[in-house]
Amino acid sequence: MASEIPDNSVGLVKPLSHRFDSSITLQSGAKLPGFELVYETYGRLNEERNNAVLICHALSGHHHAAGYHTREDTKPGWWDNCIGPGKPIDTDHFYVLSLNNLGGCHGTTGPTSINPDTGEIYGPTFPTVTVKDWVQTQHMLAQTLGIDKFAAVIGGSLGGMQAMQWTIDYPDRVAHALLIACTPKLSAQNIAFNEIARFAISSDPEFNGGHYQTRGVNPERGLGLARMVGHVTYLSDDAMGDRFGRELKSGDIALGQDVEFQVESYLHYQGETFSKLFDANTYILMTRALDYFDPAREFNDDLVRALANAKAKFLVASFTSDWRFAPERSDTIVDALIAAGKDVISTTIESTFGHDSFLLPIPRYFGVLHAYMGRIARERDL
Amino acid sequence: MASEIPDNSVGLVKPLSHRFDSSITLQSGAKLPGFELVYETYGRLNEERNNAVLICHALSGHHHAAGYHTREDTKPGWWDNCIGPGKPIDTDHFYVLSLNNLGGCHGTTGPTSINPDTGEIYGPTFPTVTVKDWVQTQHMLAQTLGIDKFAAVIGGSLGGMQAMQWTIDYPDRVAHALLIACTPKLSAQNIAFNEIARFAISSDPEFNGGHYQTRGVNPERGLGLARMVGHVTYLSDDAMGDRFGRELKSGDIALGQDVEFQVESYLHYQGETFSKLFDANTYILMTRALDYFDPAREFNDDLVRALANAKAKFLVASFTSDWRFAPERSDTIVDALIAAGKDVISTTIESTFGHDSFLLPIPRYFGVLHAYMGRIARERDL
Repeated sequence: MASEIPDNSVGLVKPLSHRFDSSITLQSGAKLPGFELVYETYGRLNEERNNAVLICHALSGHHHAAGYHTREDTKPGWWDNCIGPGKPIDTDHFYVLSLNNLGGCHGTTGPTSINPDTGEIYGPTFPTVTVKDWVQTQHMLAQTLGIDKFAAVIGGSLGGMQAMQWTIDYPDRVAHALLIACTPKLSAQNIAFNEIARFAISSDPEFNGGHYQTRGVNPERGLGLARMVGHVTYLSDDAMGDRFGRELKSGDIALGQDVEFQVESYLHYQGETFSKLFDANTYILMTRALDYFDPAREFNDDLVRALANAKAKFLVASFTSDWRFAPERSDTIVDALIAAGKDVISTTIESTFGHDSFLLPIPRYFGVLHAYMGRIARERDL
Repeated sequence: MASEIPDNSVGLVKPLSHRFDSSITLQSGAKLPGFELVYETYGRLNEERNNAVLICHALSGHHHAAGYHTREDTKPGWWDNCIGPGKPIDTDHFYVLSLNNLGGCHGTTGPTSINPDTGEIYGPTFPTVTVKDWVQTQHMLAQTLGIDKFAAVIGGSLGGMQAMQWTIDYPDRVAHALLIACTPKLSAQNIAFNEIARFAISSDPEFNGGHYQTRGVNPERGLGLARMVGHVTYLSDDAMGDRFGRELKSGDIALGQDVEFQVESYLHYQGETFSKLFDANTYILMTRALDYFDPAREFNDDLVRALANAKAKFLVASFTSDWRFAPERSDTIVDALIAAGKDVISTTIESTFGHDSFLLPIPRYFGVLHAYMGRIARERDL
């Protein structure tokens, strides 16, 4: 219970929403007949409208990044440790916008929404959505809020890909891009793990080709399994070892079918919890967006050319134990930015927590974020 | 077609089998009322009976390690590149024994066999089997063949664990142990991947709690998924990248549900092929044996003490890109062997092929094996 909301919290927040009534064409060519985006804001947009910061969420994220929805909430938003008064993304200076991306399952139009053209739930017929589509719709939302240019677009993992795409698609509308635990494209291994996750979901007999909602069922085992696969790739071998070692859930090795190592219970718990809260079609859609992301592709596989028109300054941060998007992947981005003549500061943070590090208040990491955001604030006299 | 069987092949071979009629007690305490082991031998046991070599198979292996069963076979045994006249494990000198381990699904008694006590298929009621049990039953088989002491016990991955256990349980019966791409125990991450594989199998509605065979079904999707997970962990990120990159199965990104990267097709093919040939209960049983393996456990987690009574000489080989059982795991074994005062030669082989390297004819690797086996042959005047 958060009846005592901490002083450095953004406090009680309410999700807002904006409905776009005209249709948009997505990168795939598919048209979406209007859509709704759910978002939250923290802090206050100043008169100059130059203190807006966009937070882009990762695979399983959503708009609720900071604060509490009710005093009874046991947990704050997913990046509450980083966003708030006096925190690295300081709401005393910045106006923070965080949304649930198109295709999501937390209020924004997505596979669980009704298709106005048919009156039925989209389900698996929801069109393919890409990082580029997310950036386009984020830009549309920004316009409705009177934000012409973001002081910073910030994201970790899939969120970092959106920040990168912003600098390519809207070079005049983003001053700084913070790419954290990011990669310019997925490796074959990354794609393989995503495909295993999708196959786990589609193999669940309750999946029904994606039409589970209309049949009143939910492919919970498949989605849980997908999450378990993801989870192992988010953690480092060391982090799992430190946390679980080879400890047994109870007692000694009995060599029976019931013996469980603690790491197994933990994974099952993660899978089960997640599968009750998340939509399987959205999970498939978002892993596909990850797979497709490859901004260099339309520039003859030349990342330098892809980034040539960017006008933003960049912070690129990676983590030593991240084997999903290893520091070498961030180095590829940094090298391309340098070759393209861009301003870039890069750092690799020592951490044993794997890809998940980007969500954790690791002192050096948060120190870097704090300092970099402070520099942006000073540039603007915030 | 192998109508032209190469000169350096062991040629046409026939699986043999031995039935043990008396019951044995397994490590779990469970009793097995007799069992049958299927095996092959290559080369000739010499008069001194000092040229026998035992090959221990890994997770999905079996007795057919070398040669061809028929002239129509399109593929030879799984380690044919390493076993044969003039090859690293030279059948001109050595008598090679290779068996399908207890609990297997290639002829040896296992979950697909009939339980003589009930007249029904064991299925999921087949008792838990450990590396120690395999070593015990391998020893029983060796005795029936008149082999008192192996010149070498050799294995990669799970096979290396058996070789290590041999030196602990039967110190007087193994002269050399070759531990390749091995580990003294699984990490939490290794266990996590195994548990995901098991959960994938048990989540398949055709699994029926393991009673699929009696119902005339097969959890092919679940087993295929399990294999896909395993496969990604056997390959390195680089190996997958070199082999598949981000190439599409056909054409350009259409952004539809049908788009497939080549790595996805490959994984599905691997999963489907495997799931038609392997038994799901055996897969569960063998991954459990991997999880349980921890010879130091009964020595207060002291690997040095666990290996104290070993009399074998050791070769420990690992591969740079193996992230499943990384070189550091082999180093742990080497350090313990040195601390225990044992003879050990160790090497880390440069390779981009990940854990799978142990099956591949990497020149330096095969050179080392050839040289080490040559030394064993010379010691014995073979």
